[in-house]
Amino acid sequence: MADFDRTPRNQVKRLPQRGQYDAETIYQILDASLICHVAFVQGEQPFIIPTLHVRDGDTLLLHGATTSRMMQHIGEGHPVTIAVTLVDGIVMARSVFNHSMNYRSAVLFGRGEPVIDPQEKLHALARFTERLLPGRWDDARKPNDQELKATSVVRILIESASAKVRNGPPGDDAEDLALPVWAGVVPIRQVFGEPVNAPDLRDGADVPGYLRDFLAARV
Amino acid sequence: MADFDRTPRNQVKRLPQRGQYDAETIYQILDASLICHVAFVQGEQPFIIPTLHVRDGDTLLLHGATTSRMMQHIGEGHPVTIAVTLVDGIVMARSVFNHSMNYRSAVLFGRGEPVIDPQEKLHALARFTERLLPGRWDDARKPNDQELKATSVVRILIESASAKVRNGPPGDDAEDLALPVWAGVVPIRQVFGEPVNAPDLRDGADVPGYLRDFLAARV
Repeated sequence: MADFDRTPRNQVKRLPQRGQYDAETIYQILDASLICHVAFVQGEQPFIIPTLHVRDGDTLLLHGATTSRMMQHIGEGHPVTIAVTLVDGIVMARSVFNHSMNYRSAVLFGRGEPVIDPQEKLHALARFTERLLPGRWDDARKPNDQELKATSVVRILIESASAKVRNGPPGDDAEDLALPVWAGVVPIRQVFGEPVNAPDLRDGADVPGYLRDFLAARV
Repeated sequence: MADFDRTPRNQVKRLPQRGQYDAETIYQILDASLICHVAFVQGEQPFIIPTLHVRDGDTLLLHGATTSRMMQHIGEGHPVTIAVTLVDGIVMARSVFNHSMNYRSAVLFGRGEPVIDPQEKLHALARFTERLLPGRWDDARKPNDQELKATSVVRILIESASAKVRNGPPGDDAEDLALPVWAGVVPIRQVFGEPVNAPDLRDGADVPGYLRDFLAARV
């Protein structure tokens, strides 16, 4: 996979040594997060909306209600900026100044185009469903025509992107190392809990094997 | 605490029944998340940057390097939009269409003003540090004059805000309830791990009691 060109738009300005521009790093961050934040502009006012995303090769898919303001606006091709952030830990230094976070973040700049073809849309919805839980698409009831019409999908063509990553221990100033203060990292991670049955679950509809496998793989 | 007025800017348009406008709900969401996403506009281009935040009464504080583009832009009073999103679970319905997420999200619209007074700035930095870990400010080495100058703080005056919350089981269509498909919620939560000592930790600088207390309270 290639690198994204560094331009004034995607260049990591603060702490540039944390900037990364290779598609592999950026895509790994995109794929590791369930949600993204989408920013767009209407009448000089910035808006942000959190939503699910799924990567499809070198593009990003978003979906929502056909009536959604965000989906309509993005489908019209206005500039859109998408951020994905994974928080990995609190970095505690001897000095307040050197406190930080460990994180992996990616920012994409692009424009959307609507996915109109029903087969392509169905394929996109399958990707969203499988992103949530591999095996789910073949098990759940698939969208009917009415539901398909009520759902809108846009494909974001990524024009530019960058990642910013910090990991590892605190970086204290040499003169602070002798201070009698604990320093280190408190790791943070997202965990999945035990599935909670729907209260109206019919008899025999037990937690499926593909969900058990998914949870077992994440422990 | 009061409610925010509903205006075209902050009104939850999709699934309006999930919209909430009371400051108590919105502030609880702000306070429950370590990071927010800040959107702003430069030359019609939206930007998003993830950052730490801390609420100070009816305002929100952000901090960063004095040289940071975002801090300078916000300090100049341009419109800024801030989103905080907490992901609480994957909602698995019998139908693909009714799959969803459980989440708590808040969006704030406002403008920033720089915090210039050194005492006020120091007070703000204490709030950031205590937000990360209560007890840390009194233990770590406090900022010196040079570090204080290198750090910029802005106060966001919240003009408008709303929250959007989904919780509870899937909402399947009545005709899908008899399908032989498991339905329910897979809870998601953020957990803190065992502290990792800095490799150059001096003898005797053990994990402090206030960190042990913090971790014990979050299990």
